[in-house]
Amino acid sequence: MAKAQVLYDFIAEPGNNELTVEEGETVTVTNQNIGGGWIEAQNSKGERGLIPEEYIELSSALSGGGNVAAPDVVYETFPSAPSNSSNSNQASNGDWSAWNTDASANASNWAAVPQASGAGRTWNPSAQEHPQAYQGPGAVDDEEWDDEWDDGRSSGGYAESEAGEEGTASRAGTHGSTMKIKFPGFKSGPEVYLLAKLPPKGKDRIPVCLGQVGPVWLYPESQVECVVADPKKGSKMYGLKSYIEYQVIPSTTNRPVNHRYKHFDWLYERLLEKFGSAIPIPSLPDKQVTGRFEEEFIKMRMERLQGWVTRMCRHPIVSNSEVFQLFLTYKDEKDWKMGKRRAEKDETVGVMIFSAIDSPESPDLEPAEAEQKCETFSRFTRSMDDGVKELLNVGQEHWKRCTGPLQKEYQRIGKAFQNLSSIFNSSGYQGEGTLTDALTMTGKTYEEIAQIVAEQPKKDLHFLMETSNEYKGLLGCFPDTIGVHKAAIEKVKEADKMVATSRLTPQDKLIMIKRVSIMSYALQAEMNHFHSNRIYDYNRVMQLYLEEQVKFYETIAVKLRQALSQFTTL
Amino acid sequence: MAKAQVLYDFIAEPGNNELTVEEGETVTVTNQNIGGGWIEAQNSKGERGLIPEEYIELSSALSGGGNVAAPDVVYETFPSAPSNSSNSNQASNGDWSAWNTDASANASNWAAVPQASGAGRTWNPSAQEHPQAYQGPGAVDDEEWDDEWDDGRSSGGYAESEAGEEGTASRAGTHGSTMKIKFPGFKSGPEVYLLAKLPPKGKDRIPVCLGQVGPVWLYPESQVECVVADPKKGSKMYGLKSYIEYQVIPSTTNRPVNHRYKHFDWLYERLLEKFGSAIPIPSLPDKQVTGRFEEEFIKMRMERLQGWVTRMCRHPIVSNSEVFQLFLTYKDEKDWKMGKRRAEKDETVGVMIFSAIDSPESPDLEPAEAEQKCETFSRFTRSMDDGVKELLNVGQEHWKRCTGPLQKEYQRIGKAFQNLSSIFNSSGYQGEGTLTDALTMTGKTYEEIAQIVAEQPKKDLHFLMETSNEYKGLLGCFPDTIGVHKAAIEKVKEADKMVATSRLTPQDKLIMIKRVSIMSYALQAEMNHFHSNRIYDYNRVMQLYLEEQVKFYETIAVKLRQALSQFTTL
Repeated sequence: MAKAQVLYDFIAEPGNNELTVEEGETVTVTNQNIGGGWIEAQNSKGERGLIPEEYIELSSALSGGGNVAAPDVVYETFPSAPSNSSNSNQASNGDWSAWNTDASANASNWAAVPQASGAGRTWNPSAQEHPQAYQGPGAVDDEEWDDEWDDGRSSGGYAESEAGEEGTASRAGTHGSTMKIKFPGFKSGPEVYLLAKLPPKGKDRIPVCLGQVGPVWLYPESQVECVVADPKKGSKMYGLKSYIEYQVIPSTTNRPVNHRYKHFDWLYERLLEKFGSAIPIPSLPDKQVTGRFEEEFIKMRMERLQGWVTRMCRHPIVSNSEVFQLFLTYKDEKDWKMGKRRAEKDETVGVMIFSAIDSPESPDLEPAEAEQKCETFSRFTRSMDDGVKELLNVGQEHWKRCTGPLQKEYQRIGKAFQNLSSIFNSSGYQGEGTLTDALTMTGKTYEEIAQIVAEQPKKDLHFLMETSNEYKGLLGCFPDTIGVHKAAIEKVKEADKMVATSRLTPQDKLIMIKRVSIMSYALQAEMNHFHSNRIYDYNRVMQLYLEEQVKFYETIAVKLRQALSQFTTL
Repeated sequence: MAKAQVLYDFIAEPGNNELTVEEGETVTVTNQNIGGGWIEAQNSKGERGLIPEEYIELSSALSGGGNVAAPDVVYETFPSAPSNSSNSNQASNGDWSAWNTDASANASNWAAVPQASGAGRTWNPSAQEHPQAYQGPGAVDDEEWDDEWDDGRSSGGYAESEAGEEGTASRAGTHGSTMKIKFPGFKSGPEVYLLAKLPPKGKDRIPVCLGQVGPVWLYPESQVECVVADPKKGSKMYGLKSYIEYQVIPSTTNRPVNHRYKHFDWLYERLLEKFGSAIPIPSLPDKQVTGRFEEEFIKMRMERLQGWVTRMCRHPIVSNSEVFQLFLTYKDEKDWKMGKRRAEKDETVGVMIFSAIDSPESPDLEPAEAEQKCETFSRFTRSMDDGVKELLNVGQEHWKRCTGPLQKEYQRIGKAFQNLSSIFNSSGYQGEGTLTDALTMTGKTYEEIAQIVAEQPKKDLHFLMETSNEYKGLLGCFPDTIGVHKAAIEKVKEADKMVATSRLTPQDKLIMIKRVSIMSYALQAEMNHFHSNRIYDYNRVMQLYLEEQVKFYETIAVKLRQALSQFTTL
């Protein structure tokens, strides 16, 4: 049993039979033939588990077993997908109504192919024998072994979705709560921009125009749309690690590109870094959520990724950005990689985004006016945040009632009628067949109603809650976005003193006022964007909700009328 | 302070400031000027309270204060009746739909007249100064001071109705539970009838015929119907005691007669005594029930008295009986009293009722066959008892859900929409009036739905539960009725041994078999009556239930459709 030196820290993923080790630690290799880039080792405390092969350096000459397939590692199998597999491909496009299909419908096409699709699509050319094999930290590639995000168990509805179990999230502020904007390499305060010597204006300008409602972004003539669809499961390391890959199909090219969750996450980080000071960039759907069925989890995540991408597409500045376009339309692996490197080197990020913004052709705003606007937005977003959360709470409670006690109660009513019917049938009295048949049918109708009641929230409340959930996420970004503006206004207020003590030239102060004005125009444009989207979204989702509610009540009325018709007219 | 001798036992009614005393006890009269037939006295233990004046004999000459009006006794006033007084007179007829009117509508006409109606209708001619004054045991009259039944507080729905608070009920087995038949002056076993020397057949014969379904009672060509209506409150003893008087209007004479609850109770006791061995006589609605509103209590009691009378009217034997006819059609006070005395002297009661029954013209049943029929009925009634109770449980739970959490939840949904609307209104963004108006209307619609949901059980579930409650009561009588039959069959089985030991002549045994056969025909006729009523009742109530349920769902659908139409079409 060879001794080995640990080269990098490695934190075991819980439940994965891994071993946490620290750089510099010495371990004993207990099985070098695990395969997939893993070895089994034992630490000085006697704990045993898997470590990535390339995290250690063997003390002896024994090495190179990584490519030998371990015969007793089997592909992880999924719970078999339910039989309803016919409509699986269409079910996951951007159309909300698709979500109404059977909850497990979507699972069948990827559950059956844990290996093939992943193998065909992996971008790692170096693992010849096992395309999904772990590459270790030496590989300067995208395919880190951070697939833990992709094998989270699954999600239920709203009740569970925010109860991430493990503290492994890389972003501190997760979905829906306030995020803290931190941009590596930049001071976070707005003074960086307010007093910066700006480079000459390039071509990527972001104009603010004056529209009917006030300052607005310049909207493109046509808006890109995007479908997130067809989640396929891939696996690596002989099924030890699995991930989901989604197709993203932009309306501009109509050509699908594949992305894993972590690519969405990379995009989110870029957008946040670049635009976060001016534009609320909503978090991605939770990385880790728990629940009962993996199919439901994947469907829910896909739906939310769809929602996120759609919202980004609808934003004229975001959707027009180079990094977003790269994500939607990269041509091949090389294109993607080059684009990624370019995006990561972008320097117009953080508060510097305001340097790319052009004011409308109107007078600069006074700082006091900017402050007042900012305060108005702040107040509105806070109260909407409260309103949306209340709606979510109510909706969640109602959802639980429909799928819980109410369903059970209608079932019990149904059973009580059927029970009475069968008791009546046992009377031996002649001629009560009509009554007992009608009673039985009524009982069955109430059992159907129980089912309808339990399934209804998925058909209507779901969308109201998804929309409100999205808005909760968006509204959670505003405190930071607004905070940047408030800090800038404070800086301008300080500027008076600084001019008095000659720590700032009057000229610089004028520049600051000009730039706060630009920031304020940007904020107003963004708020107007937010308002018009909010009106559109709630108008749409309320209609959908009410349409489905009407159908719900009408369906039940029709069913009960049928049951009623079975009774003898008196 | 005069000493007095107690002449009769008197048990204090709890909470009425009365004093329990025993015959022969000596008490001290502490206040002779109470009025209304009461005096205040103290017993040897120092306990003080009211005793009926005529229960004691004063040791001194002090007496006769009973007719002096006590000035500080005031008429008990009711909580003032709600304003909706226009439809009060029609609301309380036999039509179920009348129950659907506002719960308090009925209260107004009697609440306003606590004295007048009672005064005009009391049958006690002896109390000149205070028509309702207590008469004491010396008065050979109906107006005992048992009005405690009439001032019970009130009743809510099913949840409270069976929780009689105080153990003052005169009948041991109350509503819905098994009653024990005890007939004073008769042995309770069927042998009294089986071996009795029967008197010559009179004119009041009860024939059992052979119908399509087997043995049946002879049904009259037209069935008397009866409306119980117009409850009026009367009071006695300066309002210390109050009671409700109902109008009972039979279809045969269309002439209303007045009855208090205790007259119904007297009728019940007579019917139970006379027919209970052959016919299940359901208990009256609970005497004492608790609840919040007296109006509701009175309405509920009236509705249940109506149900009870209707069921009695539908029974060909009961409705045709002299005592029942007396109750419906007595001409005047004298007629009533004579009829009462006659009924109380009736000797064809208990098992002797079978002596009035004539078998159909078909062979006598073998005891084994009778036993088997009896067993079948016993099994059926037991299982129906279970089925009906389950339905009541489910219904009760659903009722609570509708008026409790579900109503609150719809209210909260309504408020959440309205809240969101008013937040949106505060945005300062132009042109969202259509959305906010529509949202407000949707919110109000859900508040209306909350109300509809909470009121629905009164419109449909109520009748299903009332019917099931009636059947629960009826079914609770069967164990006793069936028990009489089983005991008779056992007696016939014993007869063989008795003949063998010459304790019974073979002739007598044949008589017994003949009489058990009559009993069995009667039981079959009664079961067939029960079955046909059951089918009729459940067919009717299920239709009513479903019709109202359909309306309920359709109403909500219409309301939601209206709300939907307020949104901008996209």
